[in-house]
Amino acid sequence: MSPPMKSAAAIMSNLSLSTTPPCLRLFSLSLPFHRSLNSTPPIHTNPNLIVRNSSSGSSITAKPSSEMRKNRNTGPDQDQKLFALRQLFRKPDINIDAYIIPSQDAHQSEFIAECYMRRAYISGFTGSAGTAVVTSNKAALWTDGRYFLQAEKQLSSSWILMRAGNWGVPNTTEWLNDVLVPGGRIGIDPFLFSSDAINELKEAVAKSNHELVYLYDVNLVDEVWKEARPKPPNKPIRVHDLKYAGVDVSTKLSNLRAELTDHGSSAIVISMLDEVAWLLNLRGNDVPHSPVMYAYLIVEIDSAKLFVDNSKVTHEVMDYLKKAGIELRPYEAILSEIESLAARGAHLWLDTSSVNAAISSTYATACDKYIERLSSKSKGNNLSGAPTALCKSSPISLAKAIKNHAELEGMRDSHLRDAAALAEFWSWLEEEINKDVRLTEVEVADKLLEFRASQAGFVDTSFDTISGSGANGAIIHYKAEADSCSVVDRHKLFLLDSGAQYLDGTTDITRTVHFGEPSERQKECFTRVLQGHIALDQAVFPENTPGFVLDAFARASLWKVGLDYRHGTGHGVGAALNVHEGPQSISFRFGNMTPLLKGMIISNEPGYYEDHAFGIRIENLLFVKEVNTPNRFGGNTYIGFEKLTFVPIQTKLIDLTLLSAAEIDWLNDYHSEVWEKVSSLVDGSAREWLWNNTRPVAKP
Amino acid sequence: MSPPMKSAAAIMSNLSLSTTPPCLRLFSLSLPFHRSLNSTPPIHTNPNLIVRNSSSGSSITAKPSSEMRKNRNTGPDQDQKLFALRQLFRKPDINIDAYIIPSQDAHQSEFIAECYMRRAYISGFTGSAGTAVVTSNKAALWTDGRYFLQAEKQLSSSWILMRAGNWGVPNTTEWLNDVLVPGGRIGIDPFLFSSDAINELKEAVAKSNHELVYLYDVNLVDEVWKEARPKPPNKPIRVHDLKYAGVDVSTKLSNLRAELTDHGSSAIVISMLDEVAWLLNLRGNDVPHSPVMYAYLIVEIDSAKLFVDNSKVTHEVMDYLKKAGIELRPYEAILSEIESLAARGAHLWLDTSSVNAAISSTYATACDKYIERLSSKSKGNNLSGAPTALCKSSPISLAKAIKNHAELEGMRDSHLRDAAALAEFWSWLEEEINKDVRLTEVEVADKLLEFRASQAGFVDTSFDTISGSGANGAIIHYKAEADSCSVVDRHKLFLLDSGAQYLDGTTDITRTVHFGEPSERQKECFTRVLQGHIALDQAVFPENTPGFVLDAFARASLWKVGLDYRHGTGHGVGAALNVHEGPQSISFRFGNMTPLLKGMIISNEPGYYEDHAFGIRIENLLFVKEVNTPNRFGGNTYIGFEKLTFVPIQTKLIDLTLLSAAEIDWLNDYHSEVWEKVSSLVDGSAREWLWNNTRPVAKP
Repeated sequence: MSPPMKSAAAIMSNLSLSTTPPCLRLFSLSLPFHRSLNSTPPIHTNPNLIVRNSSSGSSITAKPSSEMRKNRNTGPDQDQKLFALRQLFRKPDINIDAYIIPSQDAHQSEFIAECYMRRAYISGFTGSAGTAVVTSNKAALWTDGRYFLQAEKQLSSSWILMRAGNWGVPNTTEWLNDVLVPGGRIGIDPFLFSSDAINELKEAVAKSNHELVYLYDVNLVDEVWKEARPKPPNKPIRVHDLKYAGVDVSTKLSNLRAELTDHGSSAIVISMLDEVAWLLNLRGNDVPHSPVMYAYLIVEIDSAKLFVDNSKVTHEVMDYLKKAGIELRPYEAILSEIESLAARGAHLWLDTSSVNAAISSTYATACDKYIERLSSKSKGNNLSGAPTALCKSSPISLAKAIKNHAELEGMRDSHLRDAAALAEFWSWLEEEINKDVRLTEVEVADKLLEFRASQAGFVDTSFDTISGSGANGAIIHYKAEADSCSVVDRHKLFLLDSGAQYLDGTTDITRTVHFGEPSERQKECFTRVLQGHIALDQAVFPENTPGFVLDAFARASLWKVGLDYRHGTGHGVGAALNVHEGPQSISFRFGNMTPLLKGMIISNEPGYYEDHAFGIRIENLLFVKEVNTPNRFGGNTYIGFEKLTFVPIQTKLIDLTLLSAAEIDWLNDYHSEVWEKVSSLVDGSAREWLWNNTRPVAKP
Repeated sequence: MSPPMKSAAAIMSNLSLSTTPPCLRLFSLSLPFHRSLNSTPPIHTNPNLIVRNSSSGSSITAKPSSEMRKNRNTGPDQDQKLFALRQLFRKPDINIDAYIIPSQDAHQSEFIAECYMRRAYISGFTGSAGTAVVTSNKAALWTDGRYFLQAEKQLSSSWILMRAGNWGVPNTTEWLNDVLVPGGRIGIDPFLFSSDAINELKEAVAKSNHELVYLYDVNLVDEVWKEARPKPPNKPIRVHDLKYAGVDVSTKLSNLRAELTDHGSSAIVISMLDEVAWLLNLRGNDVPHSPVMYAYLIVEIDSAKLFVDNSKVTHEVMDYLKKAGIELRPYEAILSEIESLAARGAHLWLDTSSVNAAISSTYATACDKYIERLSSKSKGNNLSGAPTALCKSSPISLAKAIKNHAELEGMRDSHLRDAAALAEFWSWLEEEINKDVRLTEVEVADKLLEFRASQAGFVDTSFDTISGSGANGAIIHYKAEADSCSVVDRHKLFLLDSGAQYLDGTTDITRTVHFGEPSERQKECFTRVLQGHIALDQAVFPENTPGFVLDAFARASLWKVGLDYRHGTGHGVGAALNVHEGPQSISFRFGNMTPLLKGMIISNEPGYYEDHAFGIRIENLLFVKEVNTPNRFGGNTYIGFEKLTFVPIQTKLIDLTLLSAAEIDWLNDYHSEVWEKVSSLVDGSAREWLWNNTRPVAKP
């Protein structure tokens, strides 16, 4: 899956303009949506993976992967909502001049539960990326080029659409500084902003002397939403079997505690949902596509507390947690525990790129109180023992990225079952198309889900399927909608990017096919994308090489003829967890210095997109492993990849005259491996299809 | 030419340890010698081009490219010198506890005049890289792995050899902080440290409350050296013909002035010698290999002053300068002019990475005085108009790097004459070796100089020839010495890296050959280096791509079998100027974000070095140009290279089975071009040699 654009907080402060390295000028567009490029970027906001604006914003009719599913006519209409929201501005305990409503939940999640889709509720705009800002007499919504058309349709006339990235469009803080009288009070829900984002926001509005007002106790949109607001998810949590997790909780906890001790910390608060799930070997059901549950985890040297809605905790899980020495606390009790930590003098490890501002501010305030108390007692002479924060990337991020043997086995196995489902699917689809059956992009995606769902251990899709025929394939984050999507046209290229969550692993694969006769142009582009895919797949490199060093391998064949693609080449993937995870990436962004380490999983997905015509992407998942090279210059280990994905690549689309002998060998070897690994899992016409589509090709 | 290690100032503060990006862990060694990695690195200290320490320091017997030529027995012996130096410490107007003697001149030059080789004089150690520090009872010399053996031989027992880069060896400031009583006074010659270096130095010694004492008026080593000190060079300056320079001085000056105005500056001080030479279209004779003269240039909006020893200025040059509106000032008058600039309220553009601390400190002090004066007059109410510095990379650096048509033509033409000289040389050498004539590495290099010197417009070598037979070829900066060098062995690989200065251009080429039967191992390594060379030569990439993106192309074929090389892949080259120039580079160091721009020249020199056995490097110079791609995705221009160097690559060393069809085509096309361009410039046996060595090869 080609990764999504991200982070409404970034839209707000328009970070990219100040943090985009010069190299991004490679591409002609400014990038208003990515996060600041730290050398160790926050997970789940992987700045290297964000698709840039297409220059043809006007053609974009795609819907987001993750958007509000509720009928948006529930409740009062948009103007009434704004009226109700503004009424709250004037309450004496609130007293604000503006309110910012971002897209995020409190955990910086990629996929969020409906009850947290406040920006969609208040504005009516259901796209995945956007920020709403309401003042006493204005309401504005920022979104990016993917969503301009959708936002135009969905916003009422009370809303100003801010086409972020377009020339002359202010970012949210510039706009606020412009429309508010200096010295204004800007309200926010501090749970919905990362600690880093809020600091940038604060600095930006301070230019006009505005103050950020943290409204801890009430989210104003929820107050307007009232009873119509969906209940927070409460599906049961399950234990992730040790045979898939590989390492038990007590080992993970003791590794984490050793790391805390090494860094002089006595506690850590973990707020990324996949980190909580990974560390505790638990899986949840709270959001689509990601098997996670809403929770915070605090680990101290001799205790651990999980903050989660009790209704999700089955007896089995309760026993399991008890055995692991993990206490349960209500989800809402997080801030009081943070206060108590500070009061006990705990040195708290905070990943300020992911931990929300409610937590970090509460800790900071409580630390100040502690110091005041200490100062007054000791008359300021002895402040040793006062609690301090360690602001540092979460140590779980890297630990989770490096898969153990069991996780890798689960990934391997689930990929083979996924490949079987795909062979059945492609065999079925070709047959239907050849029978001239009319099938829409959505129907095709639904059918794929059926095939996957019949595989053992299937849980969910790992993201909304991108099923794009013809020009829709050129929309990188296209989401077909039943009421508006295209038919899968046998005379056009068809791009299908999809994935699944299984009990033992997570998949993500893209194939591009043609059911009729591809044009020479399409074949050349496909072949060059394939050459990039092969070059990256075959790369061998010294240990500790950051992913961006390899990015050019995937683009070189396209560059030769002046082509390129506007997204990263590879993202990390969780093991039976989030389909996008950090900290590694392979991208043209040079900020992510995380090396590709043995045990990581990364996608290999170069592409090419011709606006209004077609899209091509070829994606496999790869496992990073040591290569047994005949030399080891400098005593280095050399690193390469092993494929996890085993689904044929359509040879009809290849211009064999462009391929080198080595590239043809790669293709034939791959197909022979596909047949070998997957043929026993399918039968009938699917097996026949697999046979036909794994036959070797010869250099013409 | 593979670029030298650099910067004694960096040895001192051991900058690399704090600024080395994690990616450098690619290589197993720490890098104590490179400068801090700014996104726009200073020219001439190109941090990406510095060779890393070989792990086999003990095998290194190479001497530097640039080292003291004088007999070091001139004057008192080492102990007497130290005694004399320490006597000076106690003079009331000096009063210091330690004195630091770096290798630099006042202009951060790569090649320096003998009279500035103070570190070599005082310590007896003549290697190109090193820093001496003398206290009242200790003397220590820092150098790197290339020079450990040489330093052991050359240092007297009064000196401690500090093997920089070895485990546990302190850097100079750590050592000073250790051996001096806190609150000490550390003397330096502020002309010999860049402004940036001195700030780092100051900060490091402040940890022990030491103070840096700037001794402006006297260099203590010169005081010891006395009459034996060589006179500063005074060879005449010449005008660089407009037909080679392409753009006249008044145009260059007006472009520079426009840039000053754009940045709110009213003056700039230019201290890099090649920048002065380039801007004024002058060439000098003050140092070996680089056609530059010791001078500073100050350009203001309506005037320009050249600070240079009058004795070098011929009548012709005097007239020329007068016509260009450039006044002459004595070299020594630079600081008084800086003071006067500040007094006049000039906003001075300072490239603090190259401008020495004497200049920047003088300016800062004078500015403070100005402000004091202004404050006392206006009672502190109006400081507008006070002079301020703009600390920014020199604008000449990039302007100089982008060659104009005439410069490019000069580079092309001089490369063809150079190629003719090389054809004559290789033809001669093969013949001699075949006749079993015994030739040393130095004799061979001398003969090459003869062939080059007979070419039109020859001026000098562009660096000390690296002529290495067998194991000597594995020493990246090897310099053969007449009294100790090896014979060129017909049974071993021979690496020859050399270049010339011509009136119209600068060359730099490396070829590796075998006169007998190369081993399979040597052939495989050579072929993989060649594949890297071809991959980089053929690269096409979007405009604004920084050089480091291409570095992996040159290494990929070596990496496949676990091989690599410990130096950068490409450095900039001046047009009839320095053989090393910035700001661009192609390197595994990711700090240099300078894009490769149309008009730049860059070397393509991957290599492979097997310690104690052989070295391989294949180097051509390339010109960066626009490629006429069939597509221009995103409206981008696509960039590629055109070769400047036309000398055969020995096909005997190629394992043709490893090459792809496209790589064989590249080789045959190149050789056909070599024949076409060079054959008319040679005759007799050289022409025959050229014919034999440009015949096409076929895939076996």
